[in-house]
Parts: sequence; C-alpha cells; structure tokens
Amino acid sequence: MRPTSLIQLRPAEFDIHFPAPCRSDAMQALNAHTEVLHPTPVTDLRDPEVADLLPQVDILVTGWRSQPVDAELLGRMPRLKLVAHLAGTVKGILSQGVAGTGLRVLSAAEANAKPVAEFTLAHILLHLKRVSDWREIYREKRSRIDSRNTSFGGPLGNSGRTVGIIGASRIGRRVAEDLHRHGVAVLLHDPFVSAETAAGFGAQKVEMDELLSKSDVVSLHQPLLPTTERSFGAGQFALMRDGALLINTARGRIIDSAALEVAMADGRLSAVLDVTDPEPLPDDSPLWDMPNVTITPHIAGSFGCEVCDMTRLVLDDIGRFARGEEMQNEVALADWERVA
Amino acid sequence: MRPTSLIQLRPAEFDIHFPAPCRSDAMQALNAHTEVLHPTPVTDLRDPEVADLLPQVDILVTGWRSQPVDAELLGRMPRLKLVAHLAGTVKGILSQGVAGTGLRVLSAAEANAKPVAEFTLAHILLHLKRVSDWREIYREKRSRIDSRNTSFGGPLGNSGRTVGIIGASRIGRRVAEDLHRHGVAVLLHDPFVSAETAAGFGAQKVEMDELLSKSDVVSLHQPLLPTTERSFGAGQFALMRDGALLINTARGRIIDSAALEVAMADGRLSAVLDVTDPEPLPDDSPLWDMPNVTITPHIAGSFGCEVCDMTRLVLDDIGRFARGEEMQNEVALADWERVA
Repeated sequence: MRPTSLIQLRPAEFDIHFPAPCRSDAMQALNAHTEVLHPTPVTDLRDPEVADLLPQVDILVTGWRSQPVDAELLGRMPRLKLVAHLAGTVKGILSQGVAGTGLRVLSAAEANAKPVAEFTLAHILLHLKRVSDWREIYREKRSRIDSRNTSFGGPLGNSGRTVGIIGASRIGRRVAEDLHRHGVAVLLHDPFVSAETAAGFGAQKVEMDELLSKSDVVSLHQPLLPTTERSFGAGQFALMRDGALLINTARGRIIDSAALEVAMADGRLSAVLDVTDPEPLPDDSPLWDMPNVTITPHIAGSFGCEVCDMTRLVLDDIGRFARGEEMQNEVALADWERVA
Repeated sequence: MRPTSLIQLRPAEFDIHFPAPCRSDAMQALNAHTEVLHPTPVTDLRDPEVADLLPQVDILVTGWRSQPVDAELLGRMPRLKLVAHLAGTVKGILSQGVAGTGLRVLSAAEANAKPVAEFTLAHILLHLKRVSDWREIYREKRSRIDSRNTSFGGPLGNSGRTVGIIGASRIGRRVAEDLHRHGVAVLLHDPFVSAETAAGFGAQKVEMDELLSKSDVVSLHQPLLPTTERSFGAGQFALMRDGALLINTARGRIIDSAALEVAMADGRLSAVLDVTDPEPLPDDSPLWDMPNVTITPHIAGSFGCEVCDMTRLVLDDIGRFARGEEMQNEVALADWERVA
C-alpha cells in the first residue's frame, strides 16, 4: 500500500517549489508514489479541517516558510515517518528533538548546492584574473593597456593560484572539485573532515591560519552554529593576503560585521557577500558603496529550473522511500549540531 | 644527435614566456631536448652575428612579437624543420606559404584556451543569474528584496538555460564541455563540425539563426577570416533574445562595431567584450559608458602560471619531436584558412 502524504506550503511557496515548467510532472510523481491526503497544499496544520487528516499522515512535504513542526504537532501525527523538505535548511521547520525519534528527514540541499557553488566558482575565476579591475582601468584610460606590465601587486590567472574553502559542506565540496578541475590549488579547513576525505575532492586539509595566509580567495561554506557565529573577525581578516577576496554565501552572522567594515575600508581586501548581518545591511552601512564589496540579496541559491531540480530530487527520494529503497538525500539528524 | 634550437624573442617577451616561476625548469628542458645555438634569445634574425647561425637551425622558438619569418628568412634556414611558437596564433609569424613546404609548426593554443574558456564560463554563469543586476537593485533599494517575485523578463539560473557557441575552436569546445557539465544546454554553430562531433563535447549543432533566437548567451569563438569579418551585425543582434548576453573573446573585427553600438544602446541586450574594433575603442565611443557593456583590455588569455603552462606544453612537444615521437600540439597547416 502506498504511504499517505500531505503538502504543507503557503500558496506563494507552492508556486515557487512547483513552478510551471515542472509542476505537472512533479504532482504526477507525488500522486504515483503516495496517496495525497488533501487536493491542495495546506498552510496551517492546526486548521480544523486539516487537523482531522493529521492522524493519517505518513509523509509531510515542507518547503520555504512552511509552519514549524513542533512537538505538539508531531504528537498529532503518530504515523509520520518522513518529513520531505523541498528546500535546503531543515532547522527552521524541525527542532533537535526529532533526532532519535525515528522520524526521517529529506532535504534538497544537494540540488541547491549546485547554483551556490556555481555563483562562488564564477566569482573566484573572475577575481583571480582581476577582471573588474581591468575593466575599471581600461574605462578610465580608454587607450592601449600594456597588460603584461600591469601589476595588481601579485600574480594573475587561475592556474597555480590558491583558494581556501572553510567548511566541507555539500557546497564547499562542489566548489573544491570545480576549482581542482580548473587547476586551482584548494586548501580546506574543516575540523570534521580527514585529510584523506579532503584529498578525495581535490583539497588539502590545513589549519585555519595557514588557509588564511596562503589563499588568494577565501570562501565560507559553514553552517551557522554557536561555534561558527562571528568566528570570522579582525584576526582572520588580518591574516588574509593583500588583494585577497572573501566570499560569503553561507550565513551573514558567521562574519563579525564591525570587523568586516574595518577590513574592507582601505581596499586591501575585497568581498562578495550574498548574505550579511543584519540582512539586509542598514541603509547607512558603508559597505554598500565600497567598490571592493559586492553585495547581492541572498540569491546564490536555486532559481527557475534549479528549483525544479530540487523538487525532483526530493520526489525521487519519496519514491525510493515508498518502495522501501534507500534514500539518497536523507539528513543525518544524529549530526544535528553540524547540520545547516 | 639532438636537434639544434634558437630562441627568437625580444627581451621583454622572453621575460613573459619564461617567467620566474618556471624559467629555470623551462630552459633546462630546452637544453635537455636540443642543442641551444645561442646563449640568449635573439631579437633580429638578420643581425650579422645571428645570421651566421641560421644555416644550423633545426627548431626556431618564437612567441609574442617575434619577428615574422618570411620566405627570405626561411631560405637562410635550410635545416629548419620546426617552428615552436610559445603563443596561440601563428599567423603573425608565418604566412600561408609554409603550408606544403614540410615545415612543421607547434603552438600553445591548447594551453591558452583554458583561461579564455574560464573567463567566458564565469561571465556566463553570473549572467544567467543576473548577478550584476541583483547587485544594482539591492544597492539602490537597501532593503529586503522579494527575490522570488523579482523578474528580469525571463527565467533565472543556469540549469536548463541555453548558450550558443559560435565556432568550435579549442576555446569553443572547452566552453561547451564546461557548460554541459553545469547543466546548461549548448547550441553550436560551426560549418566545419558534424552533429556527431558537436555531441561529443556536449553541444547540439544548429544553424546560426536558430542559435541566435534560442540562446540566453551567445559566445564568439571563431578565427578572424574573410568569411567571419563583420559577420555579426544588425541582423544577428535583431535575432538575439531579450536580455541575452553577447561575449566576444575572439577578435573585435568579427562584430560590426556600428551595429554593436546601436544594439547595445537601448539596454535590451548586454555584452562582454575582451576584444573590440578598433582596439582600443575611440575614447568617445558610447560603449565605454554603457552599464550593460563590460569592456576588458584583451586579457582573457594567459597570465602568470598560465603562461608557464603554455611554455611547458610547447617544450614537452619539442621533447617529443627530438625523440621522434608524435607531437600533440601541431598546427594543421593544411587548414590554413580556418586556423586562428
């Protein structure tokens, strides 16, 4: 017998997670794998009409801005076996209490890692060549540039340069693999990863200070945890090489914002910040107007077909679950502290 | 017996082709593979002291700004068997007359393709996500952006998008392979390549008009030839999709500059131009100040260690030549008309 399922998404988020190009295929897949208990997505699990369905739910499908599933709601779903989260981070929906209850959780983090890694890779490739600096000096001069004798205070080009990845998350690993393929040396700092594992995705495991002092680009790929909050501050900026770029696509609060402002003020370093603390920054933050700082509104993740890729990933795993097969994108709840 | 060699490079270009990080290794390799006829690079093959060496030269090593080797100079080098060119394009050094003479020619085009392809890839990945537009609207607004309901008049993200590659050069093929790996659909226009060959590097062969009307980015990778000169004009721009990006890392004269100015003026399209016609553009060209046009001073190619990669590639092939083995980077002189 097929397991039952319930989609718990606000209407706007349903439109995002099931966009036009893949909606019909996705709903067809969900109906094939499961018995869908309610014809439309539900917003509030405490709504009386919805509450009547809860005792029958085997699989709860969640996504961006889904209602947090607390202990009281879990108590109303005694058959619940799987939370299938269509987005990356499950911590807004579930709390640590679910670890050990036997509840299993799926996320689309693997598919969402692709666009974030691509955003990061592209910025790295352009920075190592100083493309935006070339553009500026050329527009200023409007005459022939002797590019071979133009120095930006250090080497140029991707080959043989060094990038430091902090955090061997799915995204960090993808970025490392991509850079390795482009001939860039990759250093990795992650206390939970062995040197052998790091070598497997093309990176050399090093201590934090060595990474900071040897890297032409430093890219953050850690979860936000008590141990990572504001862990990148004045001491870390001071160790970075002249001309180095800091990329943050992880969480704004990993960086100490006051130290960031100071570090960027003199132009010695540069930054690409897809996340900030606070987010957005106050409108009088000097970071907005610094030419060496690129700020984007948390858009490194999935858009368009990339969202379909996420939805498809989760639906494929729901199919595996329904058939009693091993799922490929289960969240390791035992590692809750380290999970994004 | 080892073949003899002579390096014909100006001092500044010798410094570029044999940069500090690899000079000693490179000179050691050249001395191992060949008997170097002159202790330092020579600038002018007609200099009397140098002229005396010409009858003994088996391998002439050339590079950026080397003196053109014309029929008269070739006549003075009766033993010459190989021109080993440390840069990409051999047409400034040799003329079509060498095809059929038995002279063999090596170039470093394969190594130089890597940085050019990376420059192109990075611009494509950022454009498909409209990263610079996000940056601008965020800096303007300085408050939360509802990114899921922000439209740039079309889809966003890399997955499932389409890029058109014009010219299956080494660079064009690399870009196609890279994009294919990132889940981007690649269309290729190249009259000399079969559909099967195109499929081998992840691209679908199409006619020019289909490529232009279906691509979110169009990237030029053709040589400059009578058939390609000013081949991209008003008709081609008109077929491009709203919001599409044109990238030119090939040669400025492939594009009709007047048509380019008109096409970019209303912001419907955008362009990344590493080469222009003329190059540089006149300082009153409106293209300099258009926010939708990025102009860089012909810097997509090799810098730093990337130049070492080029030199190493050519020296490895000189070694193969000296040992009677097959070279891997020989220029197909029979295809002179199509060679860059």
